[in-house]
Amino acid sequence: MGLKTPEEFKESLRDGRVVYLDGEKVDDVTTHPRLKIAVETAAADYAMAEMPEFRDLAVVDDGTGEPYSRYFYWPRNGEDLLKQHELMLVASRLNYMTTPFAREMIDSFNGCAVTAYTMGNKDYIERIEAYLDYLKKNDLSLAGAITDVKGDRSLRPADPKQKHQDYYLRIIDRNKDGIVVRGAKAHITGAAYLNELIVMPCRRLTEADADYAVAFATPVNAKGIIQIAHPFDFQRSASDFPLDIPARGHTDSLIIFDDVFVPWERVFLCGEWQHAATAVYNFAYLHRHTASTYHIAWFELLVGLAATVAEYNGVAGAANIREQMTELIFYLNTVKSLARASCIDYVMHGGRAIPNPITANAAKYFYATYYHNCTKIIEDFCGGLIYTMPTYRDWQNSDTGGFIDRYLGGKADAEAEARLRILNTLKHYPCLGWEIDVLNLHGEGSLMAQRLTIYSEAKEDIALYSRVAKVLSGITRVSEKEYTKLVQDLAALGKGVQ
Amino acid sequence: MGLKTPEEFKESLRDGRVVYLDGEKVDDVTTHPRLKIAVETAAADYAMAEMPEFRDLAVVDDGTGEPYSRYFYWPRNGEDLLKQHELMLVASRLNYMTTPFAREMIDSFNGCAVTAYTMGNKDYIERIEAYLDYLKKNDLSLAGAITDVKGDRSLRPADPKQKHQDYYLRIIDRNKDGIVVRGAKAHITGAAYLNELIVMPCRRLTEADADYAVAFATPVNAKGIIQIAHPFDFQRSASDFPLDIPARGHTDSLIIFDDVFVPWERVFLCGEWQHAATAVYNFAYLHRHTASTYHIAWFELLVGLAATVAEYNGVAGAANIREQMTELIFYLNTVKSLARASCIDYVMHGGRAIPNPITANAAKYFYATYYHNCTKIIEDFCGGLIYTMPTYRDWQNSDTGGFIDRYLGGKADAEAEARLRILNTLKHYPCLGWEIDVLNLHGEGSLMAQRLTIYSEAKEDIALYSRVAKVLSGITRVSEKEYTKLVQDLAALGKGVQ
Amino acid sequence: MGLKTPEEFKESLRDGRVVYLDGEKVDDVTTHPRLKIAVETAAADYAMAEMPEFRDLAVVDDGTGEPYSRYFYWPRNGEDLLKQHELMLVASRLNYMTTPFAREMIDSFNGCAVTAYTMGNKDYIERIEAYLDYLKKNDLSLAGAITDVKGDRSLRPADPKQKHQDYYLRIIDRNKDGIVVRGAKAHITGAAYLNELIVMPCRRLTEADADYAVAFATPVNAKGIIQIAHPFDFQRSASDFPLDIPARGHTDSLIIFDDVFVPWERVFLCGEWQHAATAVYNFAYLHRHTASTYHIAWFELLVGLAATVAEYNGVAGAANIREQMTELIFYLNTVKSLARASCIDYVMHGGRAIPNPITANAAKYFYATYYHNCTKIIEDFCGGLIYTMPTYRDWQNSDTGGFIDRYLGGKADAEAEARLRILNTLKHYPCLGWEIDVLNLHGEGSLMAQRLTIYSEAKEDIALYSRVAKVLSGITRVSEKEYTKLVQDLAALGKGVQ
Amino acid sequence: MGLKTPEEFKESLRDGRVVYLDGEKVDDVTTHPRLKIAVETAAADYAMAEMPEFRDLAVVDDGTGEPYSRYFYWPRNGEDLLKQHELMLVASRLNYMTTPFAREMIDSFNGCAVTAYTMGNKDYIERIEAYLDYLKKNDLSLAGAITDVKGDRSLRPADPKQKHQDYYLRIIDRNKDGIVVRGAKAHITGAAYLNELIVMPCRRLTEADADYAVAFATPVNAKGIIQIAHPFDFQRSASDFPLDIPARGHTDSLIIFDDVFVPWERVFLCGEWQHAATAVYNFAYLHRHTASTYHIAWFELLVGLAATVAEYNGVAGAANIREQMTELIFYLNTVKSLARASCIDYVMHGGRAIPNPITANAAKYFYATYYHNCTKIIEDFCGGLIYTMPTYRDWQNSDTGGFIDRYLGGKADAEAEARLRILNTLKHYPCLGWEIDVLNLHGEGSLMAQRLTIYSEAKEDIALYSRVAKVLSGITRVSEKEYTKLVQDLAALGKGVQ
Repeated sequence: MGLKTPEEFKESLRDGRVVYLDGEKVDDVTTHPRLKIAVETAAADYAMAEMPEFRDLAVVDDGTGEPYSRYFYWPRNGEDLLKQHELMLVASRLNYMTTPFAREMIDSFNGCAVTAYTMGNKDYIERIEAYLDYLKKNDLSLAGAITDVKGDRSLRPADPKQKHQDYYLRIIDRNKDGIVVRGAKAHITGAAYLNELIVMPCRRLTEADADYAVAFATPVNAKGIIQIAHPFDFQRSASDFPLDIPARGHTDSLIIFDDVFVPWERVFLCGEWQHAATAVYNFAYLHRHTASTYHIAWFELLVGLAATVAEYNGVAGAANIREQMTELIFYLNTVKSLARASCIDYVMHGGRAIPNPITANAAKYFYATYYHNCTKIIEDFCGGLIYTMPTYRDWQNSDTGGFIDRYLGGKADAEAEARLRILNTLKHYPCLGWEIDVLNLHGEGSLMAQRLTIYSEAKEDIALYSRVAKVLSGITRVSEKEYTKLVQDLAALGKGVQ
Repeated sequence: MGLKTPEEFKESLRDGRVVYLDGEKVDDVTTHPRLKIAVETAAADYAMAEMPEFRDLAVVDDGTGEPYSRYFYWPRNGEDLLKQHELMLVASRLNYMTTPFAREMIDSFNGCAVTAYTMGNKDYIERIEAYLDYLKKNDLSLAGAITDVKGDRSLRPADPKQKHQDYYLRIIDRNKDGIVVRGAKAHITGAAYLNELIVMPCRRLTEADADYAVAFATPVNAKGIIQIAHPFDFQRSASDFPLDIPARGHTDSLIIFDDVFVPWERVFLCGEWQHAATAVYNFAYLHRHTASTYHIAWFELLVGLAATVAEYNGVAGAANIREQMTELIFYLNTVKSLARASCIDYVMHGGRAIPNPITANAAKYFYATYYHNCTKIIEDFCGGLIYTMPTYRDWQNSDTGGFIDRYLGGKADAEAEARLRILNTLKHYPCLGWEIDVLNLHGEGSLMAQRLTIYSEAKEDIALYSRVAKVLSGITRVSEKEYTKLVQDLAALGKGVQ
Repeated sequence: MGLKTPEEFKESLRDGRVVYLDGEKVDDVTTHPRLKIAVETAAADYAMAEMPEFRDLAVVDDGTGEPYSRYFYWPRNGEDLLKQHELMLVASRLNYMTTPFAREMIDSFNGCAVTAYTMGNKDYIERIEAYLDYLKKNDLSLAGAITDVKGDRSLRPADPKQKHQDYYLRIIDRNKDGIVVRGAKAHITGAAYLNELIVMPCRRLTEADADYAVAFATPVNAKGIIQIAHPFDFQRSASDFPLDIPARGHTDSLIIFDDVFVPWERVFLCGEWQHAATAVYNFAYLHRHTASTYHIAWFELLVGLAATVAEYNGVAGAANIREQMTELIFYLNTVKSLARASCIDYVMHGGRAIPNPITANAAKYFYATYYHNCTKIIEDFCGGLIYTMPTYRDWQNSDTGGFIDRYLGGKADAEAEARLRILNTLKHYPCLGWEIDVLNLHGEGSLMAQRLTIYSEAKEDIALYSRVAKVLSGITRVSEKEYTKLVQDLAALGKGVQ
Repeated sequence: MGLKTPEEFKESLRDGRVVYLDGEKVDDVTTHPRLKIAVETAAADYAMAEMPEFRDLAVVDDGTGEPYSRYFYWPRNGEDLLKQHELMLVASRLNYMTTPFAREMIDSFNGCAVTAYTMGNKDYIERIEAYLDYLKKNDLSLAGAITDVKGDRSLRPADPKQKHQDYYLRIIDRNKDGIVVRGAKAHITGAAYLNELIVMPCRRLTEADADYAVAFATPVNAKGIIQIAHPFDFQRSASDFPLDIPARGHTDSLIIFDDVFVPWERVFLCGEWQHAATAVYNFAYLHRHTASTYHIAWFELLVGLAATVAEYNGVAGAANIREQMTELIFYLNTVKSLARASCIDYVMHGGRAIPNPITANAAKYFYATYYHNCTKIIEDFCGGLIYTMPTYRDWQNSDTGGFIDRYLGGKADAEAEARLRILNTLKHYPCLGWEIDVLNLHGEGSLMAQRLTIYSEAKEDIALYSRVAKVLSGITRVSEKEYTKLVQDLAALGKGVQ
């Protein structure tokens, strides 16, 4: 065993998994005309480990055993988190600005791990460590299955007013070998072409919901797992300008757990409803940081495309264009800085370094909440041509190609082909478009999820600020020494572990 | 002659026009699998005139001659403008929320007409009146060809630094019968399936640009007119939930004028560069009002879809959902009110009622500048499922359909099918998606165009406000009588003709 | 009796009223150094009625009786509402951009009147009509006392968890002559220098709150009414550049009702808790329109000041300054159009024309929600000098005045004095500053109040849009005729009485 | 010599300086009723150095000489910058949330120092080092005089169209001992009560502007320096609730340089117009970081006040209040993280660590551009009472105090006094209000200044993104190796010195 090659990774996907796409069963995800693009996108992770320039980033080799993917390294401090941030970012850029997403969902496993250590449950800790070892040794890929289908969103999982009891995944049987689970998880990126699933709850639970407090790992090809992958549109058509570089993109699945058996050694939470929130929250801190990270690469491409459009149109120097370009740069650099700051100001949970909860959520929130404004700016840049542009086939047709060359050129050295190619990328790369708007809003939790987390994490900060306010308003009187202590408390806020 | 039936309209499109789509020449736009959808969309205008419920709105029948389409009626006051506003809005709603756009581009002809009357040029006035008569008598449809391809946008049309002199359409020859023009116009909605083109400049011009100061009408099938229509995506695929109601949508063309001859009786501007701005501006006042009008219908559908999503998810009563629904209603009603106010506060230009220039631009600017926020709200409403939802074919497949029914239902009475249908409409109706974002930004002029117009139209208002400011700051001293006069001047602002 | 002169109005305020200001009892509000400014501000209403240029606007003289103030005219249609809108706007401009506010609070009386007619309660209707007659005959001024002090805002008035039962004004006794009320009303503009108070509830009530369902009129000098007026800062100091025009401004009071007796003929609601909401809502529709109206005048001055600052700084033509000026004009004209549209699309409630509920709220919401952005723009315009500018006394001091003249001039013809005068106006006129920010947010109800009203008023609209959405998604099937009916229903939305 | 006590600092200000305030000459700034508040505010810096808890932060004692203020320490890396950041932040909090600002303007000296080293001019370097030594030894305070009065802002300093040549400070004479300068600097915080002025240009210059390229240090009491300080409003009046803690606040001056002599040893730039931009830019990077830093403390107080208002009103748990509190926390933590990130990703200029130029500007831009929204949120929180609240004197008056206690209490345990005290702080602390809005916009450069800097600093980043865009659009073809290099270049962006 040890590190897999991209080919070995692909081979590992031919395992009898049950995947449907647009109404048809998929024989082999690695050869399916659409899914193979996603497979190659994930395989780029394995390819990176083989590149001498990036091996140190991608692989941990501490001399004490076999080298293994850095994703499986247990982060102990801000440096470790920054290194993983760097890994994800470089991997996306290398992979033509698309995150490989083969192991980024280790975040969900880490959420389970922090929970096990926080509970101090020895069985769970043992299973967690054994499973991590298994991941390392077999160089596996994994998806995280979190979001339940929910039914009536105003009702809790076990509420009898729900049409049925399976809108959230739950334990329907326990026996000596393991448990049986039923339910469905939605929007699971990569599940159709990765090895393992980490399944966990998606919300706080009450005692009545105990059967829904379940976390576990399972191979994707386990009996009873049925995936409905959603068709995607990242492959190029005959109307698109062709490229030498390969197409990249991901899809996601609705995963049905049709009474799936999970052996005890893969169960990490089983009825401890009080701890569901710990798992969810710690997953979220990690994953919102991951999201902010890989979105950076997309946005770098967007900025480059926008700048090139402006250049070709001859307006790069216009006051309003510079203003708008400044907004894009401000946005990009703020996301970058916040993502890195969340590593530097890390906290320790269950013995594991976690990106600063407020900062990680602030980074994702900033990203998602101002993204639509960036979309608007870029659309404003591009002009209507991004919508109305002729196709590659129009350009190739000798009746029309000449006119296109003549009339759709821009500034002196901007040929029509180059201009159309840039617009084609904007139009058909996984960058712009409402799919991405939606992804940015909902991927890694809605804006509301981030707001709730920020508020919840800041409760102690707010209480401290309120104490200061009362002192400075003459409501509470403090000695000089007590005031000094207040100042010291303020200084300690927000910096995580020092 | 007289009013055409929908079938007669369609027949009139089989006229030898030269249209390419995605690299292929189109034989007959009325039978082409994609274009026929657009043809039917336009034909709805002719159908409406036949409906007893709406005939009074659609047709003017003053007893003095043959009845004709209200679009060709010369508006003389705010009531006339409101009636045309109502016509466009009802037509869109009737047409399943998509504007027929068969004659809305009369705005461009009206821009030319105002210019002719403002110039007081008898030849032009005579041609204008004759052409309007021709439109009425033959019940024709028309597109407006305004936006040039521009080349280097920082350079004027005749600037020798442009790669060639044809980036803006220009007169290359004049003879006793007429003129010959060359150039290309981009983003011309409906040109592939309407009868006539009204061609006019898209910007202010200088003396050096005199050959670019040209406006005229031409049949779409004139020799030398070559269209490259852009492929569009409004037809339903096998993956979409099927509907009884017909598909609706428009496309646009890049139109090449490969040395097209125009007889003098169809020429409305020819070299009078000082008057290009009059034509452009008056077209814009009218057309921004038209845009605000037909966008209302789309947005009504969006609000309805969003409300239904919330209802199905069981969250219609949640505080944040109500907040967001309120934003959508505020937005919709503000657009409606501004669009109507621009009619009521009309001005008279060249003997024709024109929607209030500032208000009409403010309505369009409000629409376009806050639209992206509405998109964000609606995406937030819908959840990730709008992106990841299974297809109709998944639902029909007996292996997966049952799971979908079981797991994708919402609130008690919300079946999975209904939920998916609403999301399918949001996803695949001409409503959401970045095409619409782009259209809302660029259709009828960019945000910058509206800002420039608002500023330019408000110069006298600003000067008056500044005079008041100086009086109230003690810089200018005025008598009581003079102050009273200032107040009367303020009262006259912004109300158009009273 | 009949129309009062400004002097007679002032005389009427020397009536033994109990007013405190900054810890001191006020002997005579008409001579108090601060309050007399507010008195003159209100008196401008009476002065306007004497100006021949505006008498038709200010006074109704139908030949059938004595002429009376237009504020007391019963509006029957949109024209009447527009006329009153015009009256308030012209009055503000005449009054140096500050609303007189002597009778604008007739809105609160109208809220009571609509309620009486809606209830069909003959006693109340009789009293309402008699009181209106009394107002007309005596040409009285009036304030509206609506907002209670509320205590714990999460609790209802009668909730036993409130610290005491008087956080909302209530009836504590009823006898054959009338009722006795106790409580306090906050933020009551003009109460210290107007004749009458119209007192009404500020929220929906439940049955338990019946004693809080009380509306009535009372003279300000009634026994037991104690006002604490808040000190204000609109008078000019020795540091301000002096002006020929008089200072203008208002203040408000916290009004204590220390067991005040109200005779039955002035009681308009007394225990009918179900109707409290009718009174509150109808008042709000009217008053939000009033607010949007008089804010227009302030904003006109702001735009004038901003334009003059830009001119003096030599930057009026700079791209970013023009952009920002455009935003201000867009904002101003949108408020103007919405305010007028709310009149034109009026509804009839209780036999009285009421501005369109959604549009009136949308106008106020637009005003208040985007106002802070305008403040930001204007501050950006002004530069730091608005904060750091030398005072009039600095300019008068011969040691420093010459330096100020030399160094604080702007563009060639912009003297330092003129520049400082404009900034002084911005700084010290009731225009900019957080007081106004606050006023714009909270005056006439918070943003939340407008949102709640918009949502509540739009419920039927939303239901209709949702029906359309279901039809166009294939969930509900309708006949062609039914669809036509839907279109007709859509056309009827939002236009009020036609 | 060595570290000064607060008293010694105050003594040093009695030096014959010429200061006017509101038209009167100030005898002694340390005893003037308004200015003494500002003096004490600055003196807090000296007091902090004497506190054992903070001495390590405030004082550098490397054992090799006398201890000196950390502000005078030459920062060599991110740690040094972070330490100074921490110093400024703790000093503000200790000083009741107001920055002492006694030495923060070392930023301007550092701008000069970086310029001297960048030029490699030995004379200047020698003077810079000698002056720094002088500052350390005498433990001096200093203001930075940057902003010229500008006249017509569309014209350059030396433009003959300016009304006179002194709108920007310039050299009017050079002799063997030094130079003579003339002009005026506006908005100079602290100049009236600090020891030294660092004077430098405020913009890029051209060759024609060479006489304006001048930077120097001068004692505030130099002959010909006349200050017009602006009156401020931070002292408490009899209407404010009294506090045990002292009042804090700053003011600024318009400084006239009426032909001031500067000896050569204090001249750091003299005619080298090409280097003016270096000084300005490096000052700006440093100072925008300083600004972001001390604004944090104010905002912490604002959050505390807002939270307390909500608590007292009984609405702390309401959904919309939590939403708004979340926005405030998001804002505060984002500013904190960006400010710290700008230190960590520092760059080296002229041998000195400088906060990351893009990040430092992004932090200030984020702060200033979203601040008005926070103001709006807080005003929304507070309700109208912040505007209309009774005064301390009303509360003390026995006629009205009881009513206030009875009616202005909030939630069960929220007394009226406490509630009013919190609102009084919000109203009268240097926190809310348009002064602060203005300060946040204009202090440390306008939003436009930050945008221009961000754009200018990002030019190379944008060029790199554009190269990537061309590669991924198939316009430029690169080898695999070249692509890898591009990825490595991307990885190096924005991280400063590593």
